[in-house]
Amino acid sequence: MRYVTISNKGQAAAAVMIGDDVLDLKASAVLLPEAGAVAGSVRDILAGGDAALSSIRKIVDKVAASGNLQEDLKSGGALMPLKQAKLMAPIPQPTLILSCGMNYHEHLREMNTPVPKTPTAFTKNAASVIASGEAIILPKAAPDMVDWEGEFSVVIGKPCFSVKAADALNYVAGYTIINDVSARDWVAPIFKAEGTMPSILAWEHNILGKQFPTFCPMGPVIVTADEIGDVSDLHLEARLNGKVMQSTSTSDLVFDVPKVIEYFSQFYRLMPGDIITTGSPSGVGYGRNPKIFMKAGDVIEVEVERIGILSNPIAID
Amino acid sequence: MRYVTISNKGQAAAAVMIGDDVLDLKASAVLLPEAGAVAGSVRDILAGGDAALSSIRKIVDKVAASGNLQEDLKSGGALMPLKQAKLMAPIPQPTLILSCGMNYHEHLREMNTPVPKTPTAFTKNAASVIASGEAIILPKAAPDMVDWEGEFSVVIGKPCFSVKAADALNYVAGYTIINDVSARDWVAPIFKAEGTMPSILAWEHNILGKQFPTFCPMGPVIVTADEIGDVSDLHLEARLNGKVMQSTSTSDLVFDVPKVIEYFSQFYRLMPGDIITTGSPSGVGYGRNPKIFMKAGDVIEVEVERIGILSNPIAID
Repeated sequence: MRYVTISNKGQAAAAVMIGDDVLDLKASAVLLPEAGAVAGSVRDILAGGDAALSSIRKIVDKVAASGNLQEDLKSGGALMPLKQAKLMAPIPQPTLILSCGMNYHEHLREMNTPVPKTPTAFTKNAASVIASGEAIILPKAAPDMVDWEGEFSVVIGKPCFSVKAADALNYVAGYTIINDVSARDWVAPIFKAEGTMPSILAWEHNILGKQFPTFCPMGPVIVTADEIGDVSDLHLEARLNGKVMQSTSTSDLVFDVPKVIEYFSQFYRLMPGDIITTGSPSGVGYGRNPKIFMKAGDVIEVEVERIGILSNPIAID
Repeated sequence: MRYVTISNKGQAAAAVMIGDDVLDLKASAVLLPEAGAVAGSVRDILAGGDAALSSIRKIVDKVAASGNLQEDLKSGGALMPLKQAKLMAPIPQPTLILSCGMNYHEHLREMNTPVPKTPTAFTKNAASVIASGEAIILPKAAPDMVDWEGEFSVVIGKPCFSVKAADALNYVAGYTIINDVSARDWVAPIFKAEGTMPSILAWEHNILGKQFPTFCPMGPVIVTADEIGDVSDLHLEARLNGKVMQSTSTSDLVFDVPKVIEYFSQFYRLMPGDIITTGSPSGVGYGRNPKIFMKAGDVIEVEVERIGILSNPIAID
């Protein structure tokens, strides 16, 4: 299944893709009472596990099988081409975005950083989340070094704590894409810092450069785990104005999805709708020679095989 | 006003203190239709600003003035002594808990750490939040060095980004208490780390030790800004089994509330219900000689003047 969240009269509404069309579940309830019975948010649908997935599969099959029903749903405004929908991030208000760093071999080489012994992560904040299609705003305070990080991302489906890697995928509902947009103004000071505490403070400052409003594009969809299949060798590509900047496979990950979940669930209780980004591959603007940053009018796209394209224009404040 | 969140038949319900009693707003609606019209969560009440505060003040005044009404509300189960209510954290699912570190002069001295030039912070996760009265569970993976950090905490009431210190208090809805419970197993490696990247990785690991389930007691109440008044010299005390461990005043803060908001709002868009803890004062168990950590059967209390007492027993997993 491919879930999206759309805005219907200003309210977030859970929706499911049927081919290139979007079915607004709540808005379908007049014609499809079973759709009205489904949870109202993508997070709650994911938390509903197999039972919710099965209900939605029946709804999708029913709609896909009937041209008349499709026409009726379209004239009622419940079924529409994706391009006509007002897309939101699939989880508009995530409770946790745990963002892995230093997790692609090639990216570590370009940043001249050794491979860490354990996964590492920081958090991004929910108020920075935007949808595919929305503008990334260059912040007035740091407009000149705004960089992309296209990231294959995991969406948790069941509460989990202290799970083993072999079990970890049982807690994953699906996958999406995040662009971990980063103002790089505070990267250089990290490498100039001398001593433990100055290094840590410089690092914390660098993480602040990832928190600006609009700095967390997410989507366009969540593809459920059953539909995407094996995720150990998915192609990921980031393009700036159509030019390929990042091109890799998830097979280059230092710590794969099960290992990342095993590690962080030792500390965090992960909850439905929580997101773990697996880290940026090589090809970020900061790692290039000469460095490239995003400017107003640019368009940054992140494409992950079998998920889709997360596309965002850049604008000034 | 003093807000609490209580559990009513398993659902979080916004409530307000009237003397030592708790008024469940939704449950009062039969007798007080104006209480039924109030937003259903403390977060949404805070987001409602002065208008919501004024509505609730009228409700509280009306109930306080009528013994008969109190009796009717009590027999209907909408008004009860605080001790009979099933307390939840006042914001049960915060979207952001930004937790300042290194922010009390005396605590920096005990940790042998220089005063940083800017505020510093990490995040704590919502799934670690518990109420006053609930048990802090010593995690199986790290049960031996679990420490307290009693923290005076700010609750945001209005969205804000890039605000000045002089304006910052206009965005604060109220104040509460957080115990930033921390497994200290990963503190010593920070000071042994050599070089920039090892220092940063050790620091990140240390922050993971603050994310365990139950490691973020919050409450018992949120006191609104208008009621608490000036917060620049509030007494804070943490007691382990009744023995004073931390005793300080917010006047010892390196960066006070306006400065903290000014700094972090340069990067974060802060939203209603977001929490900023101002950091731990001196007197943590790790900083003592000999070190003291919490064990099953202990009770840790954090008291902040004009807010109340956040009290949590310690239990094993």
